[in-house]
Order: sequence, then structure tokens, then C-alpha cells
Amino acid sequence: MGRMIGSSSISFDKPPFIIEGASIVGQKEGDGPLGKLFDVVEQDPMLGQETWEEAESLLQKEAIQKLLFKAGMSKEEIRYIFGGDLLGQLIATTFGILEFEVPFFGLYGACSTMGEALSLGAVMVEAGNADNVIAMASSHFASAERQFRFPLAYGNQRPYAATWTVTGCGAVIISTKKGFAKITGITTGKIVDFGVKDAQNMGACMAPAAADVIYQHFKDFNSTPADYDKIITGDLGLIGKSILFELLKEKGYDISAVHMDCGVEMFDASEQDTHAGGSGCGCSATVLAGYVFKQLKKGAFKKILFIPTGALMSPVSFNEGNSVPGIAHCVVIEKN
Amino acid sequence: MGRMIGSSSISFDKPPFIIEGASIVGQKEGDGPLGKLFDVVEQDPMLGQETWEEAESLLQKEAIQKLLFKAGMSKEEIRYIFGGDLLGQLIATTFGILEFEVPFFGLYGACSTMGEALSLGAVMVEAGNADNVIAMASSHFASAERQFRFPLAYGNQRPYAATWTVTGCGAVIISTKKGFAKITGITTGKIVDFGVKDAQNMGACMAPAAADVIYQHFKDFNSTPADYDKIITGDLGLIGKSILFELLKEKGYDISAVHMDCGVEMFDASEQDTHAGGSGCGCSATVLAGYVFKQLKKGAFKKILFIPTGALMSPVSFNEGNSVPGIAHCVVIEKN
Repeated sequence: MGRMIGSSSISFDKPPFIIEGASIVGQKEGDGPLGKLFDVVEQDPMLGQETWEEAESLLQKEAIQKLLFKAGMSKEEIRYIFGGDLLGQLIATTFGILEFEVPFFGLYGACSTMGEALSLGAVMVEAGNADNVIAMASSHFASAERQFRFPLAYGNQRPYAATWTVTGCGAVIISTKKGFAKITGITTGKIVDFGVKDAQNMGACMAPAAADVIYQHFKDFNSTPADYDKIITGDLGLIGKSILFELLKEKGYDISAVHMDCGVEMFDASEQDTHAGGSGCGCSATVLAGYVFKQLKKGAFKKILFIPTGALMSPVSFNEGNSVPGIAHCVVIEKN
Repeated sequence: MGRMIGSSSISFDKPPFIIEGASIVGQKEGDGPLGKLFDVVEQDPMLGQETWEEAESLLQKEAIQKLLFKAGMSKEEIRYIFGGDLLGQLIATTFGILEFEVPFFGLYGACSTMGEALSLGAVMVEAGNADNVIAMASSHFASAERQFRFPLAYGNQRPYAATWTVTGCGAVIISTKKGFAKITGITTGKIVDFGVKDAQNMGACMAPAAADVIYQHFKDFNSTPADYDKIITGDLGLIGKSILFELLKEKGYDISAVHMDCGVEMFDASEQDTHAGGSGCGCSATVLAGYVFKQLKKGAFKKILFIPTGALMSPVSFNEGNSVPGIAHCVVIEKN
């Protein structure tokens, strides 16, 4: 059973296991520094579909298929899916998981969704309510541009603070069955609003939420940065990362020696014109399944803190001049 | 600890309690047959705000304030909020709950969200991971029209199958502390797509999902309609309700003697021009907190099955000609 610790955390007495992960990405992600680590690189951004949204749904479907194949499991063995995407009303997920006919909890945490899915999935499995669940999240560059920004054909210029939405889906099986890693704790984030209104600088919007939940995590678990082989944020990018370092230093923690940001690692910014880095729910989800899990499997990482970060905005809130609050969730993953 | 039963259900061995509920609605809901039962009726659809979205956020904020006041609790005693709304990227919830600074799990299940929130909140509390959590959902007629349909000023005609989005927010505290009712079980729904493409007939889109999860519930719990004082669906409306009855009759269950639909009860369709009934996340959430809880408190209901129903569509999916799949979640609530 979980134990409540501090104000916002759970330490799992019977940590649920991670038995497998799968990652599907697009061509640009495949060309990036981590490209060789993903299970599938789709060369066609449309994946043969008629719309960007259908393409993103197919990323999800392929991720689940690959995941079940790698784990040697059938869809009937999965009791729940916890997942989401960035699009209004989670429409990519709706059509992506439809045919698996698995009971579904739809989640929206912007790019923090994979942290939310892992947290709730772990709680469900540890409580004895499921043997196996899938936690997953996806994003697609073109469906996100249509949702949040400009028509692609318009060719708008992007400021250097902007990030590039990752085309990809990462999916994970959390299980009572022994696996290569286990989820030993979570710290759930609050919504944090520093009043930043620049939706082209999402790193600045999200960094305060990341700093808040990481600080809370250290307090609740009575831990320090040195207790983790890596502290892995989702998609703060280059600018958000430096703000995070500053905010945590003010609170007495220096994480720079062990920090990595999935968005920064995903692309070679100087070669790939991605500016501040990668973003989108699919960014941290695919880096987790594609890169982090391999490091845990081979023992390069023994204990990591994974913190997907989300910017809470909508096309309507942006047009109405609202700020962009952030949210982030911590998940502690240890090699088994 | 929960026990998995059947393919999609949990029976709680230590059922978490419901200690309080709160409901805030708009004027039209206040004028309806249940009007006197809600805690607050807001006469101004804008609630003094500048946008419909801000008005919906304020509904959420007021619902939490009222809930904490009725329960005699402070926000510091709430460990998590599980909630959502209908708008893209849950923007009403983001700004509605921001200032409470409570760790947050954002949920999207269209109008099934209150069922999802109660389910996950109950799992969290029963597992010993929280003493008190809030489950909540909201909708607003005008923000939903902007999101999904036509500008209000356009004055489009509505077919008789259309429902009227409820302006309202319902919120509930689930707790380890003894309350007037308890959540004894849940059955989590799958996404079900019968290929209906008429977004003006959401009852027809959602009824197959409701039938699927109710049938699954009877199988998993080995129960029959006679075991419940009421079987309460969310917002199927008049047309969806009759489809639900037909689908369940085909599977051998007649629920007509104990069924009610929150959407049908919310308005007087002949007087209020609401056509098939009320809809929106706020519909089932406010009827639960405003009407159902009072019946449980006074003993008129001893055991009910609550099944909020959602239609999974977005403006983009509608424009791209997709069907509208449905989802619904069952929650068993018993008088304590």
C-alpha cells in the first residue's frame, strides 16, 4: 500500500513494476541524437492517413501494438489505459485506442500527461486494482500547430524561445509482474502561474511549476539531487532549463550536475532548426521509453526522477489574453 | 483494499466515504424542476466576468469554496483535486482551481468526467494515499457553444435531438472520514463507437457506451436492476434514454422501472425549449450533488448506480467528418 508522505507525495510500499516500453517517432525525431533508440521511426508524417489528427491516432495505435508485442501480451491482459494528448477533447487518443476496447481513463496535463499517467497507473496497480495497465501520451507536430498556432502553409517565423512539438508516442506497461524497473514514489504537482503570457516561450511558463514540484519532492522524500542518477524534466528546453536551475538554487538545491531535459536531448538544435528544443506530450514519453529505459536496463541509471512538464493554455485562453500556467508531476523510477 | 472483479470493475473492501457535495448552477437550471435543490443559482451568466470561459472558471472556484464551507474544511486538508470540463485543454478548470494550490489530476471524459473523477478519487482514498480529495466537473452553456458549435449571436436553429449544455459545477469530497454515503464499487467504461456522426444527437452517440458499461457492471457485480433504488445516467436525454433501454433489453435487462437521466430531469423540456434535455459535465455533477445526495441523506435512496455519459468529439474531428464515439463510467454509491 502507498504511504502518504509530506504534503503531495506517495511512497509505494509495494512498488509496481515497469515491464516494457515502446516508442514510435517521426522522421525529424529519428534524425535527432536519440534517433537510433526509438522502436519505430515513421518516415511519412501523415502515416498514410488523410488528416494530421488521424496520423497522431495511428501513432498511438502503433505504440500499443508494439508495446504488447514486446511484452508478449494480449490486449485482454491490460485492465486500464491511462493516457492523453494535446488536442482539444483528446481526440487523437479517442481514435487511437478505440479498437483495443480497454477501459480508459482520459487524462489532460498538457505535456505533463505522461507523468500523470504513470502516477495514476502506479496507484491503480499498487492498490491491487489491476495486474497490468498502460500509461501513454502522444503529440504530433502538425496536429499541434493546427490546434495551437498557425496553418503550416502560412510559414510563420518562430522566435528562438519557441520549441518544436515532437511527433511521437511513448507507452509503458505498469504491472504487478516483476520487470526491469519499478515506480517507488510520486509527487503530484499543483498548477503554478507566474503570469507569463508568451505562448512562444513555454519553457518560461513551465519552469516555475517544475521548480515547485521538484522542491516539494525533495522535501517530502527528504532527498537531495545527489540521490538520483538523473533528474529528467520533460520539455523545458534551453531557456526553461536555465530558469529551473535559478529557481531551485534560490531554494537551496543545485540540480545541474544530474539534470537532463528530454526536449533538449531530442533534437540537435543547431542542425535541426528546432530552437529551444522539443516539446509535446510525446517528447518525454518517447525519451522515457526509448532512452531512459535502456539506461535503466543496462544499469547506467539506478534511480531517476522523471518530471514531465506541461503548459496549460488553449487557443481560446491565448486569444483572450490569459497567462499560461504550468504543471509538472514527479515520478521516481528505480532499476529493479 | 479494492478487489478486481469481472473484466472492468473494482469492489471496494474499505469503501471511501462521501462527506459533502456542492452545486452551483445558472439561472435556467435554477428555473428548472430541480432548481430549489442546488446550493447556489447564479443569475448572471457571465458571473461578472469578461469571458464565458472566465465565468465557467468562477463556477468551479465557487463550487470548491461552497464545498469546503459546507464540510467545515480548509483547502489544506484536500490532498488532490480530480476534475475537468469540456473545453479544449481543460482551460476552465486550469483557472478555476489555480488559487487553491492543491495537487491536481486533470481529467477529460467529455460529459462522463464526473464518473471518472469519482472513480479515481475513490481508488486514491481507499488505497490509503489521501485522507480527502475533491472530485468535480463543470460546463457552461455559452463556453460550450463557442467551443463546439456556432457563435451565440448567430442564433442557429437546434434540432429536437439536440441537448442544452448545463451551466453548472458539482463538486464532492471523498474521504476516509465517515460520511452520509460511501462509494462501494466502480466499473470503468471503454470507448464505444457505433458510427453515429450527428453531433446534434449526442444521446444516440452515448447510449451504446452507457449500455456497454451498465451491462458489464451487472455481469461483474452479478447484480440486476432490482438491486438499485435508482440507475442514474448522465445526459442521454429523451432520445438516448430510449436507445439505452432498447440496447439493454436486447441483453436481457430492463432498467426502465428504476432509471432516471440527469439531463431529462434538469429542465422542463416543454417549458424551457431545451429539446432532448440537459447535457455537459456539469449536468450529472450538479444533479448528483444537488438532488441525489439529498435523497441518500434522507434515505429515499439506499443504493444507486451513477453513470455519467460522454460524447467524444472535438471541433476538429467534427469538421473532418469523424464519428462521435461515447464513453461512460459506473459508480455505485450507497447510503452509509
